[in-house]
Amino acid sequence: MSKKVTPKSQDYSKWYTDVITKAELADYGPVKGTMVIRPYGYSIWETVKEAFDKRFKETGHVNAYFPLFIPKSYLEKEAEHVDGFAKECAIVTHSRLKVDSSDNLVVDPDSKLEEEIVVRPTSETIIWSMYKKWINSYRDLPILINQWANVVRWEMRTRLFLRTSEFLWQEGHTAHASEPEAVDETLKILDIYKEIVQDVMGIPVLTGKKSESEKFAGAIDTYCIEAMMGDKKALQAGTSHYLGQNFAKAFDVKFQDSNNKEDFVYATSWGVSTRLIGGLIMVHGDDQGLRLPPNIAPIQVVIIPIAKKDDDLDNIESYLSDLINNFKDKDVRFLFDSRPKMSPGFKFNEWEMKGVPIRLEVGPRDIEGKGVMVARRDTGKKESIAITDASDAILSLLDEIQSNLFKQALEFRESNTFTATNYDEFKTLIEKGGFVQAGWDGTEASEDSIKKDTKATIRCIIDEEVPEKLKCIYTGNKAIFKVVYAKAY
Amino acid sequence: MSKKVTPKSQDYSKWYTDVITKAELADYGPVKGTMVIRPYGYSIWETVKEAFDKRFKETGHVNAYFPLFIPKSYLEKEAEHVDGFAKECAIVTHSRLKVDSSDNLVVDPDSKLEEEIVVRPTSETIIWSMYKKWINSYRDLPILINQWANVVRWEMRTRLFLRTSEFLWQEGHTAHASEPEAVDETLKILDIYKEIVQDVMGIPVLTGKKSESEKFAGAIDTYCIEAMMGDKKALQAGTSHYLGQNFAKAFDVKFQDSNNKEDFVYATSWGVSTRLIGGLIMVHGDDQGLRLPPNIAPIQVVIIPIAKKDDDLDNIESYLSDLINNFKDKDVRFLFDSRPKMSPGFKFNEWEMKGVPIRLEVGPRDIEGKGVMVARRDTGKKESIAITDASDAILSLLDEIQSNLFKQALEFRESNTFTATNYDEFKTLIEKGGFVQAGWDGTEASEDSIKKDTKATIRCIIDEEVPEKLKCIYTGNKAIFKVVYAKAY
Repeated sequence: MSKKVTPKSQDYSKWYTDVITKAELADYGPVKGTMVIRPYGYSIWETVKEAFDKRFKETGHVNAYFPLFIPKSYLEKEAEHVDGFAKECAIVTHSRLKVDSSDNLVVDPDSKLEEEIVVRPTSETIIWSMYKKWINSYRDLPILINQWANVVRWEMRTRLFLRTSEFLWQEGHTAHASEPEAVDETLKILDIYKEIVQDVMGIPVLTGKKSESEKFAGAIDTYCIEAMMGDKKALQAGTSHYLGQNFAKAFDVKFQDSNNKEDFVYATSWGVSTRLIGGLIMVHGDDQGLRLPPNIAPIQVVIIPIAKKDDDLDNIESYLSDLINNFKDKDVRFLFDSRPKMSPGFKFNEWEMKGVPIRLEVGPRDIEGKGVMVARRDTGKKESIAITDASDAILSLLDEIQSNLFKQALEFRESNTFTATNYDEFKTLIEKGGFVQAGWDGTEASEDSIKKDTKATIRCIIDEEVPEKLKCIYTGNKAIFKVVYAKAY
Repeated sequence: MSKKVTPKSQDYSKWYTDVITKAELADYGPVKGTMVIRPYGYSIWETVKEAFDKRFKETGHVNAYFPLFIPKSYLEKEAEHVDGFAKECAIVTHSRLKVDSSDNLVVDPDSKLEEEIVVRPTSETIIWSMYKKWINSYRDLPILINQWANVVRWEMRTRLFLRTSEFLWQEGHTAHASEPEAVDETLKILDIYKEIVQDVMGIPVLTGKKSESEKFAGAIDTYCIEAMMGDKKALQAGTSHYLGQNFAKAFDVKFQDSNNKEDFVYATSWGVSTRLIGGLIMVHGDDQGLRLPPNIAPIQVVIIPIAKKDDDLDNIESYLSDLINNFKDKDVRFLFDSRPKMSPGFKFNEWEMKGVPIRLEVGPRDIEGKGVMVARRDTGKKESIAITDASDAILSLLDEIQSNLFKQALEFRESNTFTATNYDEFKTLIEKGGFVQAGWDGTEASEDSIKKDTKATIRCIIDEEVPEKLKCIYTGNKAIFKVVYAKAY
């Protein structure tokens, strides 16, 4: 297999798939639309998970696990919800296979289920059917539950990590005694999403509210984090929904407040998924492959020994023993790549493709010069550092690479974010690519027309208070909101 | 809801369910056979997961994720495998719901799938279909992959944690260049299972090989860890399979060895599941509820303030501040239960039910006497300890409780393990309950007859080299193996 990826500029979509397969992040599963997350990709997901999980727990959330299988009838209980998900469900109808008279393995018709089962596309319905059992009084509130799980939404046009029939995610489902408390929770989670995605994954995001047509099926308000990919398209990277009393009403979940008054419970739900890995690749990757921010990299530092003679490897190991002990003390995730019968050049390319932030090269000449060669993945720069300074230098270099990748992505977004003042200009800017800020009159009609004309959608409402003079970019009527338009994944 | 559980002696099965529901470990899901793992139960599972995951990673394993959906045809590729799982599968046949002319939500017949999909009951087939793509040469081996996932096996008779249609587990699937290496891996994992289940969960286990009739569908050899529950029945708590070349042949997975010779790859698979939580409850629980070994307890120490006057709570908090800081330093998982309007007695009962190993009671009288009241959940003993000694005393008490729970369980198993010398005695012992060691002639016929007579099964082969004189307990023929019989879950 060639170790080169298709250049981004030549075919962005092929570049993306090349990076994923050549860096061994994921592979296609046998059932159409499914994905295998390979160990290297999964270890990135594990780090993302840990970062979110820690913050959720610090803010009072607990994990639980609800069943994969939802009775078909549950989906109907919330009208918008079923509209949103009915067309993309995996449906279980039977519980047994058998060998037929021609010796073929077939579905046993006798095992047909009385009520068909939906494989969860999201878990609001099943969770609220349980909250009905668990909530009686204000003393039972708030419930701040999260789950890490797989969900299924039938997809025919697969794109690894971004759009697959099954994906991994976390879904938070909280229940509150009042509207302000639930709205606070929705926004608190939005902040956590922004914090982790920016600080850990190095991906700058906009936050804002979705328009009616883009919001979650069953929500009052959907808030989102939106990121710009390397091809200037937008990626919705996480959503936090204020659900009001919609699901409480659908599942009849009431509580007695401290004055013995009954009310329906207020709800939120929120999720981020393995889609984030897709964003990570598209924000930081280059023509040499992945570039991983140190905070998320499974391997932060790879050490490549340049051994020519038999005893070189031993010498290199003992030469580096202090440095390696320092790495262990400071929890630096490092790998000493001593695989035999592989050229250093082959290893350089492999770890470059896999986006390891720092590569150390050490051979007899470095030992002689009491140095170590340090190569940065983000800039490609290489320099020799004295072995005695290496530990501190590498620790601060990790921080520097983390900030630099974020800075590069932010600059890229900023230099591709525009403000349109008339519709012709708007169309030219969208065609050129990037985020375009403009006024919107708040009608679905203008939103739809723009989408038909340009394929751009409202990514989020960034301002709900707008200057008197701001006009809707499409109708010229008074703008109600300032929004960001872009073509999106 | 009454906070008392049905006594074990009165109805063991009801006691078990009572403990689970009253300690809020789990609940029944709406689809028959499914289970909701509630936050308290899930946090125990998280600790179990972490303990295993750490050991797997220390021994060179990596995590990955394979799809939930398996093409029906894959299941047939290994003959024994399909026999073992075909009768208990959830089968996806359609991908869309629609509203029909009478306004009902129905399965859209136009969305019927060309090939039906099986929801994974276990992942050998899908994983080996991917290994086919990934393995070419001995350089690609070994592959040491584990996944944490949900699986589905259709069950009509649910028992929370022990037998549910969907359960959570880890499944390891490794690929090796030789038989000895794969057998070593099988046994290495068996050791890890024993270590974690004994040292972390405090559950003593026997290890051994399964008989032909009890082994995994598709394995050459199945090894297991078997534990004795509080009602003297056996629970298979984990299995490690040597699969030989069965799945490699079924999926045509060959590799070139270092001499360019082609051979099929050798395999293992192994798993433990949320069933372990069921074992934990049944090994340690008593008539007051759960008893959790400190190493697995989400809360190791609960502090109950005995506050009568308004400022008592503040005084208690400042009295305990050093102790609490010590807990934080030593990573003791503690909870200061300051919930208002709840009597200390109510809290005692709740945390007793939930199995928290140590309860501290602190009120104005303890402050005056410069002490703290320490109650052990394992023995029920309560004593006052000087506040200055409390930190050290509690740390060593946690260790003592951990050992004591294991010791109690081991003594219980030993005092209920017998050796039978003739079949009448065997039947009496099995009827009485417990593990019965006996000779077996190795035939399926004797195994079946014993099962029909007594409901006891061979839990594992504990000795493959037996004394010349040992006879099969059923036929009186020369014994080939020494085995342990018991009734089992």
